[in-house]
Amino acid sequence: MTDEALVLGLDVGGTSTRVLAVTPHGLRRGAGRASGGNPTGLGPERAAAALAEAVAQALTGLDPADVRHVVLGLAGGGALPSGEDMPGGEAFTRVWDQTGIRCPIEYEPDALIAFAAGTAAAEGSLLLSGTGAVAIAVKDRTMAARADGHGWLLGDRGSGFWLGRQAVLAAMAELDGEGPATVLTDLVIESLRLRGSSPVAGPASGADAGADTPLTAREMVAAVMSEPPTALARLAPLLTAACEGGDAVAKAIADRAVEHLAATLTTVRGPDATSPIVLAGSVLTNPTPVAERVRRMLRERWPDAEVSRALDGAAAAAWLALARIGPMPSPDVRERLFSIPTAS
Amino acid sequence: MTDEALVLGLDVGGTSTRVLAVTPHGLRRGAGRASGGNPTGLGPERAAAALAEAVAQALTGLDPADVRHVVLGLAGGGALPSGEDMPGGEAFTRVWDQTGIRCPIEYEPDALIAFAAGTAAAEGSLLLSGTGAVAIAVKDRTMAARADGHGWLLGDRGSGFWLGRQAVLAAMAELDGEGPATVLTDLVIESLRLRGSSPVAGPASGADAGADTPLTAREMVAAVMSEPPTALARLAPLLTAACEGGDAVAKAIADRAVEHLAATLTTVRGPDATSPIVLAGSVLTNPTPVAERVRRMLRERWPDAEVSRALDGAAAAAWLALARIGPMPSPDVRERLFSIPTAS
Repeated sequence: MTDEALVLGLDVGGTSTRVLAVTPHGLRRGAGRASGGNPTGLGPERAAAALAEAVAQALTGLDPADVRHVVLGLAGGGALPSGEDMPGGEAFTRVWDQTGIRCPIEYEPDALIAFAAGTAAAEGSLLLSGTGAVAIAVKDRTMAARADGHGWLLGDRGSGFWLGRQAVLAAMAELDGEGPATVLTDLVIESLRLRGSSPVAGPASGADAGADTPLTAREMVAAVMSEPPTALARLAPLLTAACEGGDAVAKAIADRAVEHLAATLTTVRGPDATSPIVLAGSVLTNPTPVAERVRRMLRERWPDAEVSRALDGAAAAAWLALARIGPMPSPDVRERLFSIPTAS
Repeated sequence: MTDEALVLGLDVGGTSTRVLAVTPHGLRRGAGRASGGNPTGLGPERAAAALAEAVAQALTGLDPADVRHVVLGLAGGGALPSGEDMPGGEAFTRVWDQTGIRCPIEYEPDALIAFAAGTAAAEGSLLLSGTGAVAIAVKDRTMAARADGHGWLLGDRGSGFWLGRQAVLAAMAELDGEGPATVLTDLVIESLRLRGSSPVAGPASGADAGADTPLTAREMVAAVMSEPPTALARLAPLLTAACEGGDAVAKAIADRAVEHLAATLTTVRGPDATSPIVLAGSVLTNPTPVAERVRRMLRERWPDAEVSRALDGAAAAAWLALARIGPMPSPDVRERLFSIPTAS
């Protein structure tokens, strides 16, 4: 054990596990990165292996005994207001036992971390649209209420998955002669063809006949069904291209996504609230037609609220961890934490 | 080879594979039954094994050389108007090679077989709502057009899956305080609890605390997500119980299911058509609120059409096979074929 206290901030998602080791002054002492660590999607053992790898990287050359607090944000799970169990808890506990870290390990829902990644405020709302979609109300830096976040099969309205599915449905409607023409049809076909595993990837006959062969709605279904349902979220960016070209069908889909997201946010945020609103998830943090419309909607409904974008989740987790072992970190410290360049 | 000609009729579905061997007089000479044989859902090898078992049973004591024609109806696949490949074709071809049968093997879409299982007419429409939902137009005993049948992720509107999902969404809406009270909530909770594999099956704490513990929408999502999506179709019968009790939410769901099914049928059937309409699938062949409403809708829109229910698919396949090796079988032969008692 040295003189220097450390905290760890972790952002544990479905595609990556990221760890930052920082000092109370917000100085970076270590960083780690591994593959996805979400036990719900990947199973506890694979998730725990990613966690172990990323933490070991971050602690290289450091004394684990110096770590005073750990905050871990977990995508699609984590600590919940009703006290639900942490998914994959046991396997994660074993990892922590082996690190030599002996301080409290705090699990937080990724949505709460995303809120802290957008504002230093103790109270406000988060609206997230990535692969999934969720809104939460934050009070006293804890999650006070949550809406949607119910997954692709039963919820996630207005999410990247939802957008991708709507793009495919619009394309199928045109191919079936049941819906209007839209540039989404060609964009979806092209996008599905570029995926190697898809049944429509190969040319129908001959050496290079594929590209111009029209696709039926039925073949489109087969291509989509050959991948996990959440792969539909990868089609969400097609909406951006189509909206930029002025496509009416795409614009209507973007409008409906915003209606869904507005309804989700309204469930956890009163009409008179003036606290900050944080936007998170790739659909809302990138310059997409949905993000643009959501910002317009927020200006109309909550004109007094400060709207910000969620930045690095691992830095936000570290920031929360610092707050647990001392006073709230100063704005300087916060700025330093978030200026650490980390790939998302 | 004996003097007696035979044909085989096969109904190959996701949960069972059934075979009938019959004479041109409609007399049963053999029957076979095995587990599901749908290559799309189960993989070609498992499907082919079921096919081999059921065919071997049906041919016990018979000479395969007597078989003059085989018609095989395949759920969720089969011969398609655009000439798509038969799923699992190669593995199936190997099975046929080994049976000693040397006659033509004809693959037909299950929807066409279902039509023939409801009427002897050469032209008409089929509306099916089981786990999935599809409508087809039949002309000259072949499938001339198809609507929906696009699977649970991108279609099947008004199907058993669709109904089960709506029941869960209604329950979640009540639990989340976003929707009206409905008896579906308790019915869905009870139904999910009775399933052993579900995370909500066990009591939350204590020996028998489970039954009365309220479930959150989030726990409901976890229970549903622990099974394949199509397992939602098993919740469809809850709508029947709820509608019988006068539940307004359940009745609204049934109404919407019928709107979807009407739209699907309208895609393939003109408003002036007078040809027969066959109803198929458990949602439409059982006394459900959706079936009752669909029949009412059909009487209003197509008052001159004869509406019937699809009976045994293997018998219908055998009937079609007989028509291939001779003149259309007489009404007597048809009646004899369909009076063969076979579990569905």
